[in-house]
Amino acid sequence: MNVNGAAETGGSVASEPRCRRVYVQGKLHPDVRVPFREVCLEPTRLGSGEMEGNDPVLLYDTTGPWGDPAFARPAQEGLPRSREGWIRDRGDVIEAGGPGARRRAWRSRGDHPVTQLWYARQGMITPEMEYAAIRESAGQGQLAGKASDAQGATSAARGPITPEHVREEVARGRAIIPCNVNHPELEPMVIGRDFLVKINANIGNSPMRSSPEEEVDKMRWAIRWGADTVMDLSTGSGLWQTREWIVRNSPVPVGTVPIYEALERVGGIAEDLTWEIYREVLIEQAEQGVDYFTIHAGVLERFVPLAMNRVAGIVSRGGSILAKWCLAHGEENFLYRRWDEICEVLAAYDVAVSIGDGLRPGAIADANDEAQFAELEAQGALTERAWQRGVQVMNEGPGHVPLHLVEENIRRQRELCHGAPFYTLGPLVTDIAAGHDHLASAIGAAVIGWHGCALLCYVTPKEHLGLPDREDVKAGVIAYKIAAHAADLARGHPGARCRDDALSKARFEFRWEDQFNLSLDPDTARRFRGEYEPPEAMGAAHYCSMCGPRFCAMKRTAEARGDQRSSPSSTFQ
Amino acid sequence: MNVNGAAETGGSVASEPRCRRVYVQGKLHPDVRVPFREVCLEPTRLGSGEMEGNDPVLLYDTTGPWGDPAFARPAQEGLPRSREGWIRDRGDVIEAGGPGARRRAWRSRGDHPVTQLWYARQGMITPEMEYAAIRESAGQGQLAGKASDAQGATSAARGPITPEHVREEVARGRAIIPCNVNHPELEPMVIGRDFLVKINANIGNSPMRSSPEEEVDKMRWAIRWGADTVMDLSTGSGLWQTREWIVRNSPVPVGTVPIYEALERVGGIAEDLTWEIYREVLIEQAEQGVDYFTIHAGVLERFVPLAMNRVAGIVSRGGSILAKWCLAHGEENFLYRRWDEICEVLAAYDVAVSIGDGLRPGAIADANDEAQFAELEAQGALTERAWQRGVQVMNEGPGHVPLHLVEENIRRQRELCHGAPFYTLGPLVTDIAAGHDHLASAIGAAVIGWHGCALLCYVTPKEHLGLPDREDVKAGVIAYKIAAHAADLARGHPGARCRDDALSKARFEFRWEDQFNLSLDPDTARRFRGEYEPPEAMGAAHYCSMCGPRFCAMKRTAEARGDQRSSPSSTFQ
Repeated sequence: MNVNGAAETGGSVASEPRCRRVYVQGKLHPDVRVPFREVCLEPTRLGSGEMEGNDPVLLYDTTGPWGDPAFARPAQEGLPRSREGWIRDRGDVIEAGGPGARRRAWRSRGDHPVTQLWYARQGMITPEMEYAAIRESAGQGQLAGKASDAQGATSAARGPITPEHVREEVARGRAIIPCNVNHPELEPMVIGRDFLVKINANIGNSPMRSSPEEEVDKMRWAIRWGADTVMDLSTGSGLWQTREWIVRNSPVPVGTVPIYEALERVGGIAEDLTWEIYREVLIEQAEQGVDYFTIHAGVLERFVPLAMNRVAGIVSRGGSILAKWCLAHGEENFLYRRWDEICEVLAAYDVAVSIGDGLRPGAIADANDEAQFAELEAQGALTERAWQRGVQVMNEGPGHVPLHLVEENIRRQRELCHGAPFYTLGPLVTDIAAGHDHLASAIGAAVIGWHGCALLCYVTPKEHLGLPDREDVKAGVIAYKIAAHAADLARGHPGARCRDDALSKARFEFRWEDQFNLSLDPDTARRFRGEYEPPEAMGAAHYCSMCGPRFCAMKRTAEARGDQRSSPSSTFQ
Repeated sequence: MNVNGAAETGGSVASEPRCRRVYVQGKLHPDVRVPFREVCLEPTRLGSGEMEGNDPVLLYDTTGPWGDPAFARPAQEGLPRSREGWIRDRGDVIEAGGPGARRRAWRSRGDHPVTQLWYARQGMITPEMEYAAIRESAGQGQLAGKASDAQGATSAARGPITPEHVREEVARGRAIIPCNVNHPELEPMVIGRDFLVKINANIGNSPMRSSPEEEVDKMRWAIRWGADTVMDLSTGSGLWQTREWIVRNSPVPVGTVPIYEALERVGGIAEDLTWEIYREVLIEQAEQGVDYFTIHAGVLERFVPLAMNRVAGIVSRGGSILAKWCLAHGEENFLYRRWDEICEVLAAYDVAVSIGDGLRPGAIADANDEAQFAELEAQGALTERAWQRGVQVMNEGPGHVPLHLVEENIRRQRELCHGAPFYTLGPLVTDIAAGHDHLASAIGAAVIGWHGCALLCYVTPKEHLGLPDREDVKAGVIAYKIAAHAADLARGHPGARCRDDALSKARFEFRWEDQFNLSLDPDTARRFRGEYEPPEAMGAAHYCSMCGPRFCAMKRTAEARGDQRSSPSSTFQ
C-alpha cells in the first residue's frame, strides 16, 4: 500500500480538515494506483481520562486528479492519460480515423473485440478490473460494527471483493466496466449488482445555452459530491466541442445519447434520420472517448401503438424520435435492424451500450404497462446479441413507478435481460412532487437499488420544470448518494456500514468535526451546525444547545454507563 | 354538499390562482362541514380544436380556518370553538379544575370515558367520525385512471371510506381520532392503517429561544404545507403560554411530551421526578386541550442495560430521563407502575396516548436490537391495558433502521401491539446524511408507510445539527407529504391516485398552471419554471425550452396520435 501523505486541498474539490488523499497500489498491476479519501478521526476520551484512538476511515473517491492537492492543470489541457499504457500494452489497438478525423484515436486492430468483456472471458484480469476491485474495498475490515453481520442482508456479496470476482462478473455479463480505449483519462469503476450501487449525473447544454467551460464545471461539481458517471445530454450546437471538454477532463465514465447529435445533423426532422448518419455519429463519438451510449433499439414499430393511450404517452426523447421515425416510414426501427453493425462499432472501441427504455412510463398511471414490458423483452434479446459480439451491456429502466410496483421492474429485468446490470431513472414514486422530484425519485431509487439495481440516474429538483443549475446538480447527486448508500447497507455490501458506524460513534462522543467529515455533505452539515452554535462552543460541553443539558439523552446514557463520552441526542422526544 | 364559492386568498395561507376553499356537509351530522381545497382545471384542447372540460380535483386540506379567505382573526383570540356543540351535546362532561385552574375546562362527568374509543364501542358514529370519514374521501370517484384498480395494491382499504368504517376501526383500536374535549378548535382526523397516511411536524422552543408568536407562526406554516398533527416539544421556560397559543390556534391535533415539563418543575434533576408532579402536569395539559401525550412507560428498568453497549446508546430524551430515574432509584419506571392511573386521566379528557419508544435505535448499528424489541413488547401490554380503560392508543417507533430491516418493525409492532396505529420517526435509512436527514428519513418513512405505518413524524434537514427554522419546517413537511402520498399510492388508498393522474394529464397537455396547483409545493414549482421560461412563453408553444421542439417527446407522441395535446418530456433522454 502506497500512501501519499499530502493533505488534500486541491482545486475545485473542496478540502476538509483532517481529510487527505491517499492511494492504494495494485498487487497484480503495480501501476494501478487507486485514490481514496482518508478521514482521520479524533481519539475517544475514556472515563478514565485516557484517550483511545479511532482508526481512520477510507472513503471511495470519484474526484479523480481534481481531488489531489498535488494536481493543478487548466481544463484546456485535460487530465493526464494515465490509462494509456494499459491500453497500449495489450497490443490490440491501432490508430483509427482517416484524414478527416478531428483527433488521434484508437480502435481494435480487428482480430477481436477490445472490450473488458472479451478480456474477462479469456480469463484476463486487466488493470481496469483490479482498479475497480480495489475501489470497492473501501471500508472493508474497518471498524467492524457490533452487529455487522448478525443483522444480515438480503442478497449481497459477503466476502471481500477481489479482482477475480470482478473479472467473473464482467465475463458473465452481470457487471460492466465502461472504459473506451479513447478515454485514457478514466479511472475505471464497475457497475453490477454485486458491487456498490453507483449513480449517474446528467449534464449538458440546452439549445439556448452553450458553454463548454460551464459543463466541465458542472461535471467537476458532480464528481466532487460523488457522481460515479456523467452523461452529456447536450442538444443544439457545439456538441463536439462540449463533449471534447467533458471527456478530456472527466475521470469518470461519460455517457451520451448519439441520436441527439444525429437528429441535429438532419435539421431536427426525425423522418430524415438514416443509418449512415447515425453510424457516422457513433464512430465519431467512439473515437472521441465516450464510454457508453444510450441506444433506443428496443422501441419496435409494433410497440408504439401500445403507448398511445397512456396518460403521458412517450416521455423519452430518444423513444419519441424513434417512434416517430417508425410511424413515418412504416418500417422497423433502424437501430434494431442494424444492431449487429452497431455492436461491431461498440466492440472496436469498448463503448458499453445502455439499451434505452424509450417507452418508459412518465406517469404513475402508465407504470408497468404493456408498452414498457414489451420493450424490456426486446432489450433482453438485444442484450444477448450484444454479448455474442463481446459488447458490455446494461439496460435502462423507469421512470415513474409507485412503490408497490418497483420490485417487479427489477425482477422482470433480471429474467428478461439475463442478469445484465439495470440502470434506472429514479423511479419517481409519485407525480405530484414537482420542484422536489429529486426526493420523490430518491425513494424509488433506494428501493430499486436495494433490490439489485446497479446504477441510479439522478433526478434534480428541476425535473419537469427546467434545466438544472449547479445547486440542482448538487441536490440531485446528494439525494442519490443517500439512496445508493441506503441500498448498499440493505444489501450488506462489505464495508458499507463502516462509515455509518464511525459517524454514529463520533456523534455519540461529540466529535463534531469527525461527524462532518464522515457525512456525505460536510459543507452543509458544518454550516447548519455553525448557524446554531458558535464554533468555540462546539465540542466543549458534553451536550449541545439543541436540547440543553437537561434533555441530552446521550449525555444521560454516558453518565449511566459511567464514562465521559456524551453527545447530542436526536433533536426530538 | 355545501360549496362556498369564494376564491381562496386567506391569511398566512398562500393562495393559488384557480384554487378555492369548498366545504362538504355531513349527512349524519349536518353541522359537520369539512373543508377541501378545490383545484379548478383548464380544459383540454382536442385535435378537432374543440375544448373538453377537466373535472376539478378536491384536495385534503389541513389549513383549518386559516385557509379560508373569509376568516381573519388575530392569533391572540384563537380559532372559533366549532366542535364545542358536539362535545356539549353528548352531555357527558362537566367543568373541571379547582380555583387554581388557569382556564375553564371540561372533563368526564365520571360515569364513563369521554373518548372516541368508548363512543365507537357503543356503536355511536360521532360528528368527529363523520368529519374524519369525509376528509378521507378526497379524490374518490374523480378521474378514475385507466388502470386504477387493475394495477392492484398490497393491503389496503378498497371501498369508499364511510363514517361507519371509521367507527369500526376506532372501536377495534386500529385507528384513533385524537380530539381532547378541551380542544374545540380542532378539525378531527383519523390515524390508522386503513386511512391516508398522516404526518406530524414537531415545533417548539429550545431553552434559549422563546416566543409563542413564532411557534404559532411555525404551526400555521406547517399546516399550510400539509402537516396533519403538530407536536409542541418546547423545553425551558414559558411552556404553558407557548402551548396555550399553539392549542388555541391549531385546527390539527396537538401532541406533547409531558415529562419535559415535569422535569422543568424539578429543576432538571431526573432523580427528583415524582408521580405527583407528573400527574399534575398531565392534568394541566389535558385541561389545556392537548390531544395526545407521548409517555415513555415502556422503558422498564431491566431493559436499560440492554441499551448500554450500543453505538449510540439512548437517543430519546424521554427515554434517557426515565432510564436515569430507574437507575438512580433502583425501581421500576413510575410511568409503568402508574399506568392505570395515567389512563384514568387520559380517559377523562380523551387525550390519546402515544406510547413512546424511549429505547429506539439512534444509529444503523443499533437497529432492531434486543433493547428496542423488548420495549415494543412492553408497549403491547400497555396498549391492551389502556384500551381496557377506554383510552385511544398509538405506538411510537424508530429511528435509524436500514431498508432491509424496516418491514420487520411494523410486522412486530402489529403483532405485539395488537393492531394499534404505528407512529414512526422516519426511519432514517443511513446515518451519513447529516444536513439532508429529511431526505434520508423520507425513504424509510415511505417504505414503512407503504407497509401500514399510520403516522410519520417528520425529520428536518437540521436533525442532529440544530433546531429547525421556518424553511426547515417546510422542507420536512414536503418531504413527508411525498413519503406519505407515495405510501398511499402503494397501498391503493381510494382516491390517492386521482391527483397524480390529473397532474400528469396536465403535464402532458402543457397546462402549466394546473400542474403547479396540483403539486405539493406550487410555489417552488412555479418559481423554478419561471426562472427558466418567461411567463409569457409558458403554455404558448406545444413544447418547452428544456428540450426544445426537436426533442420534445410528448409533442411527438401527440403528433403521432393525431391530436394537438403536447407537453414537455422528462428533462433527459
